[in-house]
Amino acid sequence: MATVKKRAKKALKICGMADNDYRNKIVTIAKALLKMDNVVILSHRAPDGDTLGCAFALCRGMRSLGKKANVICADEIPAKYSFMSEGMENQPFEAKHFVSVDIAAPHLLGKLTDEYKDKIEICVDHHLNNSIEAPLKLVDSKAAATGEVIWMLLCAMGAAIDKETASCLFAAISTDTGCFKYSNVTPRTHLIAVELMKYDIDCANINFHLLDEVSQAQLELKKLALTTLEYYCDSQCAVITITEDMIKSTNASPEDLDGISNIPRSVNGVECGITMRPIPDGWKVSVRSSEKVNASELCAKFGGGGHKAAAGCKFSESYEDAKKRLVDAVSEMLSQQ
Amino acid sequence: MATVKKRAKKALKICGMADNDYRNKIVTIAKALLKMDNVVILSHRAPDGDTLGCAFALCRGMRSLGKKANVICADEIPAKYSFMSEGMENQPFEAKHFVSVDIAAPHLLGKLTDEYKDKIEICVDHHLNNSIEAPLKLVDSKAAATGEVIWMLLCAMGAAIDKETASCLFAAISTDTGCFKYSNVTPRTHLIAVELMKYDIDCANINFHLLDEVSQAQLELKKLALTTLEYYCDSQCAVITITEDMIKSTNASPEDLDGISNIPRSVNGVECGITMRPIPDGWKVSVRSSEKVNASELCAKFGGGGHKAAAGCKFSESYEDAKKRLVDAVSEMLSQQ
Repeated sequence: MATVKKRAKKALKICGMADNDYRNKIVTIAKALLKMDNVVILSHRAPDGDTLGCAFALCRGMRSLGKKANVICADEIPAKYSFMSEGMENQPFEAKHFVSVDIAAPHLLGKLTDEYKDKIEICVDHHLNNSIEAPLKLVDSKAAATGEVIWMLLCAMGAAIDKETASCLFAAISTDTGCFKYSNVTPRTHLIAVELMKYDIDCANINFHLLDEVSQAQLELKKLALTTLEYYCDSQCAVITITEDMIKSTNASPEDLDGISNIPRSVNGVECGITMRPIPDGWKVSVRSSEKVNASELCAKFGGGGHKAAAGCKFSESYEDAKKRLVDAVSEMLSQQ
Repeated sequence: MATVKKRAKKALKICGMADNDYRNKIVTIAKALLKMDNVVILSHRAPDGDTLGCAFALCRGMRSLGKKANVICADEIPAKYSFMSEGMENQPFEAKHFVSVDIAAPHLLGKLTDEYKDKIEICVDHHLNNSIEAPLKLVDSKAAATGEVIWMLLCAMGAAIDKETASCLFAAISTDTGCFKYSNVTPRTHLIAVELMKYDIDCANINFHLLDEVSQAQLELKKLALTTLEYYCDSQCAVITITEDMIKSTNASPEDLDGISNIPRSVNGVECGITMRPIPDGWKVSVRSSEKVNASELCAKFGGGGHKAAAGCKFSESYEDAKKRLVDAVSEMLSQQ
């Protein structure tokens, strides 16, 4: 199987990488995949473009090699990703092998956790603290999207990449990078995009549906949420609130709530943006911040966590009390600058 | 000057291009720039990231070669682009040569039109119907941003590219592509981004300030405008309206109005999104559309024009009459599908 090594080397070269250890990992996983048939590819609950794009790209690649493969997910696939599964009806076979893509921890299998968490043989991911237990793991935290790793694996395997497969991988990368916007983007991200564009994929259309398109309910919710926007700490902290009433009156889904949490931080001069939404036993808080406020440290004060620029926590007290504690903590962090 | 040719060839190769005619054009302009000193670089009125990014990148490149060069613009530089001009105080010299970047037509020089329109010696642009008159023109309508062309010119000239220059060019490209989101993006766009990233530029920060950051006034205006959102034609057409009162109460600048016009089209199922805003003698209309409605044809019915997916027109009649004529025309176009 010297060709797997050659193909892996070529893929890495395209990415501007010359890391032998990394190449060997790709070769090991690619060889293991090539030995498998009747494969179930697992994606995470509340699926996004990266987990689904990876799953369907890998599934298409496996099928292009004459193998039987299916994708499964605990939750329904949102309409905006339905293009990925076109022509990919489930194949009837007795499942023999299980591969997880973009799943950081066993519980993220959702309602499929108990059934599959101990069966995973290959885990491919890009989340730093991946806690899946599997004999073969490839966790590349420098990859902006797991889609980057799947592209390298498909190349190493010699799988056919067609327009549909390339579209899945592009969608995976576009989702996790906000279309090449975030700090996780590396030269590799752009270089793989160039390769995928060779398959005549409709990048702009994919980007529009994945990133810009909103539902009527989502826009209605945004309108209502904007009426709650408040500024604190000399307008360096902004708070937006989603209420039960808003969710009921707009019939918004949990997915529809996602776009809101970037709004307060996006205001010029705001160093810390806070979004509060009701949960059964209190309030769920999303924090987005500039370099002046460490969102992870802020949320840790209240038992939460996350990253420096994006984190979350929960409160069981009243809305006003929760907000006051948060804003006071932000104020203190800003004054320590 | 054989080296200019070699350097141009290398830059084109990086972009995956092997077009001798195009290379010769780059060589001609690069050689002309190398012969110049005391150069004034002109950017367009109501300046955006592309015209300013090109102007300051070229200016920095010229200065790196020991030449005197300044950037001028009819209008003030918006705060979000101020990083481009840092350390770029105007140099005192008697202007001898004039270069325009990203300016599609003479009147886009704004209040500088009369003074400079007949003095331009080199015009570098990417607008298909460029109407600048100049002895040397390089109009590359396949470039997503004029920034792509300026990068090739700087390479061909052998100008030093540093972090600041690379940041200007990245901002130019990010502005005109919505951060690699639109259909104008080509492999070249990504490949130049990879080159610019070698200078350790803070891409994510540039993207945030250019694309995501909003003013308090802008967000307030968005909130008010959203209350006017109406759906027509079985929700395939959406109309949003900005009123005089909204502009007054939020103290919004013309720039603050820009983000609104993409909203109605962004709703799932909407094929044609219309934004109406008051002008002294009536209403200015911005249209954004899917492939089902040709925005340019729609606006042409009312004396306007533009592109297939984004166009504009004006009405002198009342708000209700203007809206009715527009929606009727959209309805007719949708029924012809």
